[in-house]
Amino acid sequence: MSLLNIIEIFGIAFFTVTGAIEAKRRGMDLVGVFVIAFITAFGGGTLRDVILNRYPLFWIAKPEYIVGTLILSIATSLVMKFRHIKLSDRAIIVPDAVGLGLYSAVGVAYTIQTGVSFPVAILMGVITATFGGVLRDIVCNEVPVIFKRGQLYATCAFASSIVYFLVRTATGDHISATAASVMTATILRIFSVKYDITLPL
Amino acid sequence: MSLLNIIEIFGIAFFTVTGAIEAKRRGMDLVGVFVIAFITAFGGGTLRDVILNRYPLFWIAKPEYIVGTLILSIATSLVMKFRHIKLSDRAIIVPDAVGLGLYSAVGVAYTIQTGVSFPVAILMGVITATFGGVLRDIVCNEVPVIFKRGQLYATCAFASSIVYFLVRTATGDHISATAASVMTATILRIFSVKYDITLPL
Amino acid sequence: MSLLNIIEIFGIAFFTVTGAIEAKRRGMDLVGVFVIAFITAFGGGTLRDVILNRYPLFWIAKPEYIVGTLILSIATSLVMKFRHIKLSDRAIIVPDAVGLGLYSAVGVAYTIQTGVSFPVAILMGVITATFGGVLRDIVCNEVPVIFKRGQLYATCAFASSIVYFLVRTATGDHISATAASVMTATILRIFSVKYDITLPL
Repeated sequence: MSLLNIIEIFGIAFFTVTGAIEAKRRGMDLVGVFVIAFITAFGGGTLRDVILNRYPLFWIAKPEYIVGTLILSIATSLVMKFRHIKLSDRAIIVPDAVGLGLYSAVGVAYTIQTGVSFPVAILMGVITATFGGVLRDIVCNEVPVIFKRGQLYATCAFASSIVYFLVRTATGDHISATAASVMTATILRIFSVKYDITLPL
Repeated sequence: MSLLNIIEIFGIAFFTVTGAIEAKRRGMDLVGVFVIAFITAFGGGTLRDVILNRYPLFWIAKPEYIVGTLILSIATSLVMKFRHIKLSDRAIIVPDAVGLGLYSAVGVAYTIQTGVSFPVAILMGVITATFGGVLRDIVCNEVPVIFKRGQLYATCAFASSIVYFLVRTATGDHISATAASVMTATILRIFSVKYDITLPL
Repeated sequence: MSLLNIIEIFGIAFFTVTGAIEAKRRGMDLVGVFVIAFITAFGGGTLRDVILNRYPLFWIAKPEYIVGTLILSIATSLVMKFRHIKLSDRAIIVPDAVGLGLYSAVGVAYTIQTGVSFPVAILMGVITATFGGVLRDIVCNEVPVIFKRGQLYATCAFASSIVYFLVRTATGDHISATAASVMTATILRIFSVKYDITLPL
């Protein structure tokens, strides 16, 4: 198992849990929770792979990803049912931001392997990181959080994709580039929510 | 023409009619009715084929599928216009459930051919059966029926995909596996609506 | 650069501007404007290429398309911010109709190259022309304009795809077929909006 796989698995775990929490908050049953968690965790990477024509898709050859997502969905449902956890909107901001940074790194890393240009690599980082959440919100019939004014979200994925690309190009080191990417996304996202930072344009 | 094609055609016909009825109930014109019927009937199989990299897509090499869907859409529009049929929500439950069982069977059958693992085969059965309806509801700006609490829907596709897989593996017979799949989806769906059966979790 | 590329670039420019205007009217920031403009301009062609298995996607090998869309999005945002332009719903009807005709032509032209049947070619023209707008409306959580009763929209793409196919087949000339396609879409769309023309069925 490569380092990239391990980072990917952490990203999947983070997004599965945030997806499952969102679905559970909307009162869905286990099948709904699993499907929403799956879409959130795999939607962005699937779109990236389809756009880049990378087959088999990153999760098709790995049934353990599907089974793992199912187990995490059941666990999240059980915990939320029996612990009566009331989760506010804010509760998923940090795990979501960590997932955002991990997925930006994975997205840019995969895309670099295919030898495409810098703008495409950054765009694929952003798509990998944000599109699962966009699909989740579309399916739940909401305006995707990414497009709501007044918070940086896609901008965080954009910034952390660029940071990953720069650190990776400068040092050639995957781990430090991923760490920088995750830190960028998390810090930028938390600051944005806390101090209401928005883009001037 | 293979047996699988014939089952596929029945599934397409069922979902085309349910899609056309839904579009007509929302007051759409013929082009809208055709597009919604097309998305409902071909959306799930298209996503399955894109995920599995099965090209050409199952309907690209078959213009008769497109023409047939157009004719069925016109027929449904005409019947609903001149017979002034008022269709309740319940009217499409049985044809929709039959389509669900047929598509689950087709989805699992195609996926088995590509030699992927059991979890992927079941997931593809569910996607083939449900995703056309998900797309239809997304395009009509509704929360997809699949995610509404209080009814089994994806669960029916899930159960009938597993039933198809088991009967097919045990007997090797495509017809009896399909029949079992359709019966599972239809009975489970009707019982769920009639007796308000829901998942415990 | 081929003639088809030049027509494609004009289509991209038209749809980028209409997408950016729509996003700006909803109060989105620059990242949101760029993403919506990108989805509007590239969504239909991307779906067409994925369905036809034409890789690399038409924009992957052309980073200048991505950069150009970004520059146009910034320019549109700046103009709308500092000129305080209030754009009515009607303001984008003509550029949108021109884009519709251009994209129908490009969609049919690409599809003819792959040697598929007439119904598929027309369907791909319609998908190329309309699906970017469908995705834009879905992401903004609206019923896609294409499905609202009382205006011809998909019908315009349908008519101009057929006109392109016929003129191209009759004359073999790409330019006159494109001109006829654009005129068909624009005239039909303007008449439909002005005189409330709808389909009888």
